[in-house]
Amino acid sequence: MSQAVEADDRSDELEVTTDEDATVSILTNGDPIRSFAEILSPVAEEFRVQLDEDGLHTCAVDPANVALVDFTAHAQGFDQFDVTEPMTFGLSLSAFENAVSWARKRGGDGDSVAIDIYDDPARMRVRVTRPDQGVTRVTEWFGVDPGKIRDEPNIPDLSLPGRAKVDVKPFNQAVQAIDSNHESAFVTRDVSTFVLGSQDGGDTTPSDDDSPQDAVMFADSAWNENGDGAPCSSLFSLDYLTEIAESCKRGKADRLLVKWGDEFPARFEIEHDDWGFEATYMLSPRIQNDE
Amino acid sequence: MSQAVEADDRSDELEVTTDEDATVSILTNGDPIRSFAEILSPVAEEFRVQLDEDGLHTCAVDPANVALVDFTAHAQGFDQFDVTEPMTFGLSLSAFENAVSWARKRGGDGDSVAIDIYDDPARMRVRVTRPDQGVTRVTEWFGVDPGKIRDEPNIPDLSLPGRAKVDVKPFNQAVQAIDSNHESAFVTRDVSTFVLGSQDGGDTTPSDDDSPQDAVMFADSAWNENGDGAPCSSLFSLDYLTEIAESCKRGKADRLLVKWGDEFPARFEIEHDDWGFEATYMLSPRIQNDE
Amino acid sequence: MSQAVEADDRSDELEVTTDEDATVSILTNGDPIRSFAEILSPVAEEFRVQLDEDGLHTCAVDPANVALVDFTAHAQGFDQFDVTEPMTFGLSLSAFENAVSWARKRGGDGDSVAIDIYDDPARMRVRVTRPDQGVTRVTEWFGVDPGKIRDEPNIPDLSLPGRAKVDVKPFNQAVQAIDSNHESAFVTRDVSTFVLGSQDGGDTTPSDDDSPQDAVMFADSAWNENGDGAPCSSLFSLDYLTEIAESCKRGKADRLLVKWGDEFPARFEIEHDDWGFEATYMLSPRIQNDE
Repeated sequence: MSQAVEADDRSDELEVTTDEDATVSILTNGDPIRSFAEILSPVAEEFRVQLDEDGLHTCAVDPANVALVDFTAHAQGFDQFDVTEPMTFGLSLSAFENAVSWARKRGGDGDSVAIDIYDDPARMRVRVTRPDQGVTRVTEWFGVDPGKIRDEPNIPDLSLPGRAKVDVKPFNQAVQAIDSNHESAFVTRDVSTFVLGSQDGGDTTPSDDDSPQDAVMFADSAWNENGDGAPCSSLFSLDYLTEIAESCKRGKADRLLVKWGDEFPARFEIEHDDWGFEATYMLSPRIQNDE
Repeated sequence: MSQAVEADDRSDELEVTTDEDATVSILTNGDPIRSFAEILSPVAEEFRVQLDEDGLHTCAVDPANVALVDFTAHAQGFDQFDVTEPMTFGLSLSAFENAVSWARKRGGDGDSVAIDIYDDPARMRVRVTRPDQGVTRVTEWFGVDPGKIRDEPNIPDLSLPGRAKVDVKPFNQAVQAIDSNHESAFVTRDVSTFVLGSQDGGDTTPSDDDSPQDAVMFADSAWNENGDGAPCSSLFSLDYLTEIAESCKRGKADRLLVKWGDEFPARFEIEHDDWGFEATYMLSPRIQNDE
Repeated sequence: MSQAVEADDRSDELEVTTDEDATVSILTNGDPIRSFAEILSPVAEEFRVQLDEDGLHTCAVDPANVALVDFTAHAQGFDQFDVTEPMTFGLSLSAFENAVSWARKRGGDGDSVAIDIYDDPARMRVRVTRPDQGVTRVTEWFGVDPGKIRDEPNIPDLSLPGRAKVDVKPFNQAVQAIDSNHESAFVTRDVSTFVLGSQDGGDTTPSDDDSPQDAVMFADSAWNENGDGAPCSSLFSLDYLTEIAESCKRGKADRLLVKWGDEFPARFEIEHDDWGFEATYMLSPRIQNDE
């Protein structure tokens, strides 16, 4: 491909470099950066992203105040993460997803992605290179005024003794299965088995009688953080749970830890070992019909 | 996975067992049981299923009285088929399809499926285990009152001398091809060639003149049961024929035998060698325009 | 399969032959003939196809007079191309696409396709054989009266000094990427880099300031036919460009040469080495907002 050295930097577009004049410059790849966008997507369209030398952090709540996501990416998980001075950028997720979608995920972590964030005017420039095609896409757009994005929510400190470690793919399939013929699902445990289920009437514990039920059970995956207490259970809208479970899978989380209590919001905590991502979804419960 | 032996049977959910208290208990796998549901699907949503020690049988006609399916599964085709006493169960096909869809088809015959049918109240419990994921889904729902399902149709005894043995996949593709630009199709034969075609005006024999036509011909596949009689032909609505052909393919039939006469209902008979399934669709003809 | 020799030619349907009584008889295969249909598809539904001993040629303009296609297939690119006397056939593209869709593309050039075109009445018969399935589809339909199809457009002789040779697949992906968030795209060049981009306000040259932009750049692919002149640029509606780019890819063009000027129609010229196809799309520009 191009060997020429030109005054105009567009002629060198196959070399993946960031811009020295940017306030924040990040080098990464298609697979992690598209996963980042997937993880944020079920909750909101605009995010107040805080960037400093430690990495990036954002937290947002959905318009109906039912779900929130709290996301951190550590600087050392990126190939380059330079911050001239800490800043807050108002990110339009759809513009970002469109720009990074040019980066394919194939081959290791995927095509190279350079992200430059500028301060005045606030804007982001994403440069994605596909070396085998000799093609580069550059997308640049203005940031959203962070003052016009909803304040970050306070994350409540809750007693959530229920715990389950489950694989992301079967969890997503289980949520889809229950969603296919129900509107809400409970989470609970039966000894060491994590149970995601639904019952007519909205009960949140599997019944021993003959009433209709539908439950997916994950063997040897659950416990009670407080020792041998009785199992807790909470009921959730499947509208939200399906989107969270799908984003855990599409965002390629390595692990999913579910924390729940009795009619409390549940936490869905995911981690990525190689990329240094951590994210927590919180989801408010539905009030049970039988009370 | 779980080694513990617990009083509560949910802790043993990876062991695939049926319930001793059930009237009927069946052990099978994802591939055959989902094929069974596929075969019934083009005709009706509710089925009166008769179960005795020989196996299960059902027959239903579609709401417009145009198509019927007659299905038999022999007991020896299942891993277990225990019937305490013969019973009739009112099956909602959509609930059944949803429950067995958790069983993947991969690897031999697919994930293990245990079906228990109870008498009072009439209900079905399906338990599907995915051993590699350590996950089990249990779905239980009430049966439909068999008295509220339409009576089984009488299958008429017809003279259908036309015969063709065709492969299921090209037959389905042929029906789709003709369906893509026609509303009805005729079946006939030309010496030993089975012909599925359509012509403007609704003629049911391929014309030798210049008029528009569209026909798919299956070489060396047709004959006349009565010896050397003239070829018969009948015309059918493609609305029904496409669904029957698709179900033959998705239901993974090993063979398809077509039997037809002159403006008589046709029979589409399929068999599964390994699973011991037999099914016959009957489809009423369209009256020809030229008479 | 069938070894019998019968008076009725339908019994020999697995032998792929054309009809001696036809005015034009063509033997080809599924892959090239379906590509031919793909290439014509973005422009019109009816085509005036001229056939003589050198091959076939057609040229048509879309109903809004924005895009045209000029297509030539040389006789020697076909397995057989017999023309008793030169003729013009009024082709319905959808009927043709439906008929040849029975020919699979797999294995070399795909299933055998025999095309007979008759003069009086004007009609086309397509015969496609799948030898492994023992199945043949024969489709026959009347031609459109060529006098009722729009006259062939005159192709203007334009000064189009901008030139770029790009691969068909990344070009199609680039057009889709820009189309995903814009209504129009400009083509230009930056030294030897071909640029397909979009900017707010409809500018047709990549800006050096901070304004939003989105551009895909193809390294080492562009030049100026007149030597070292300044780069030209033109703006095009993505409604048309996406269809043309998609047809270049689906039509399996080996090469794409783009020729453009300053606010002139652009030419998209494609070639197929093995099949001897040549096609040129012309696309009228959008007038720029800033003038």
